Amino acid sequence: MSTSAAIAPPALPAIAISMGDPAGIGPELCLRVLADPSVRKVCVPWVFGDASLLFRVADVCGLELPDEVLRPEDLPPAEFPLGPAIVDCGKIDSSAVHPGHVQAACGHAAFGYVTLAAEAVLAGRARALVTAPICKEALHAAGIEFPGHTELLAELTGASDVRMAFASEELIVSLVTIHEPLHRVSSLLTAEKVRQTIVMTVSMLEKLGIPRPRITVCGLNPHAGEHGLFGNEEQSAIAPAIAALADRGLDIAGPLPPDTAFLPAVRARTDAYVAMYHDQALIPFKMLAFDSGVNITLGLPIVRTSPDHGTAFDIAWKGMASPASMLKSVEWALRLAGA
Amino acid sequence: MSTSAAIAPPALPAIAISMGDPAGIGPELCLRVLADPSVRKVCVPWVFGDASLLFRVADVCGLELPDEVLRPEDLPPAEFPLGPAIVDCGKIDSSAVHPGHVQAACGHAAFGYVTLAAEAVLAGRARALVTAPICKEALHAAGIEFPGHTELLAELTGASDVRMAFASEELIVSLVTIHEPLHRVSSLLTAEKVRQTIVMTVSMLEKLGIPRPRITVCGLNPHAGEHGLFGNEEQSAIAPAIAALADRGLDIAGPLPPDTAFLPAVRARTDAYVAMYHDQALIPFKMLAFDSGVNITLGLPIVRTSPDHGTAFDIAWKGMASPASMLKSVEWALRLAGA
Repeated sequence: MSTSAAIAPPALPAIAISMGDPAGIGPELCLRVLADPSVRKVCVPWVFGDASLLFRVADVCGLELPDEVLRPEDLPPAEFPLGPAIVDCGKIDSSAVHPGHVQAACGHAAFGYVTLAAEAVLAGRARALVTAPICKEALHAAGIEFPGHTELLAELTGASDVRMAFASEELIVSLVTIHEPLHRVSSLLTAEKVRQTIVMTVSMLEKLGIPRPRITVCGLNPHAGEHGLFGNEEQSAIAPAIAALADRGLDIAGPLPPDTAFLPAVRARTDAYVAMYHDQALIPFKMLAFDSGVNITLGLPIVRTSPDHGTAFDIAWKGMASPASMLKSVEWALRLAGA
Repeated sequence: MSTSAAIAPPALPAIAISMGDPAGIGPELCLRVLADPSVRKVCVPWVFGDASLLFRVADVCGLELPDEVLRPEDLPPAEFPLGPAIVDCGKIDSSAVHPGHVQAACGHAAFGYVTLAAEAVLAGRARALVTAPICKEALHAAGIEFPGHTELLAELTGASDVRMAFASEELIVSLVTIHEPLHRVSSLLTAEKVRQTIVMTVSMLEKLGIPRPRITVCGLNPHAGEHGLFGNEEQSAIAPAIAALADRGLDIAGPLPPDTAFLPAVRARTDAYVAMYHDQALIPFKMLAFDSGVNITLGLPIVRTSPDHGTAFDIAWKGMASPASMLKSVEWALRLAGA
């Protein structure tokens, strides 16, 4: 420990990027990120995937080949500088991959990439994790049962309680509940769950360099329940969660009527929102930031972001995929890592 | 009948406007509408209120006085031309009204104005009803128990099934459920209720001169349930409602994932939306049309619109109220009346 302190840290932080489903647009996006000058100016991207597959996609799509290929076990410690690289995980026979198709071998490989990438971040070799899209059906075909990255990473990193958040320049919003049927949302809302979401949101904003963030918490019901007339979760769960944080010196407004909470005047005095359910957050988020949104997992011991689109099998390996959201994911990962 | 056909119809359609709560901004808004040249160019506004109160508010706010005052029983039949006028309902002692306060006498009076105005439309004397805001608490203090205009007008006109819709240049949206706690929405969704909302929405668009309207129906759950994974109301109620209308030759899309339903590409191919609950409609609506939105009641035997704001007691009788939404309400009432 005392000797390593004497070694100069790398000039740029390393970001671990998992390649996602080999048959989707993930490989193309990763190649574009690896070659992107604006990325290479601010960080060192390491793509956890299969080298032979990335070579094949680079060839098909007419993309630049990466600088360096190494094995996961050859990754340097955090202190050792290294350039952009493919971390060749050796998970799949690339000649057997059919682009745009659900394949068990691809699900198995995608799981391997994200596992190794997450481990590199947990071990301190990289500063943050960015995940290219996986295919739930391919994971299922491989016998790996997770609804998505969020739950998978919670398990991989031993996190007990995670939340999904979305970020863009226009809006940052965290969700108390995620992929739940609407009729279940009410029964899932507890003061503790709302309180914990607010705390995680504050923590995210502090990582972004906002020391006393202003949080706006949405109500659940029309007009935020109108004093209990249209529902009482505002009184039974949301207001108590805000009250429980009163002694923290935080700036928390709410519960606000959901239909006016996202108007410009409220956005102007809000650093991040806490929404009660999926579409309460995602309707305004997608209206304000359709193609520049980034997904952030809160509650993990590591920083993790991802684009908010899927594998886009219909345009896989065609050289047509836009890396815009993936580049934004790298940008937000760096901001959250304080890098 | 045969003689009246020989009489030339009035050049402009009459619109019945109820003054709303005397202690709110309704009187000021009505005076501004009465005096508005753009209104007088396209219709004949008749304000159902109390003349002495309107004179008092005109004096306090420095507004123009109306042209003509008559009693409800002196209203001419539809064929008889008449200019802009106050219809003096004689419901309140104007010297006893305290602006900005909830008063039983005001609730009683507001109920009287809207009743007489609706009767004038039902009798064919006016073409449509526009209602200035009422105060639920004042109605309650007067022993009149209605959650709002919508339910009150359903009762007054004998309508068995009504819906709330919102309209602006940017977006038209109808609601299957209105002021319900979110946890009740699922149990209130039936195929018949969704089907009836679609039918009413089509009928509204036909009145607006769109003969084969394109309707987009939202799902209820995240990702529209993702094949039943996150809820099944899409399969149990929404899709069957759409299927039940298949032989009508209508252009109905859905159920769509709510978070992408309101993106520009979908809006471009949609004449009106059908939303399942209050905030699914009102979050996007207020984001797109904050101060130009109009409330429309579907299912009544008469055309009825209103501004989408309340009595604004805090600025009552101060000459500060913007008539923008009220003017839009008159405009949409005329469009819906085919005038």
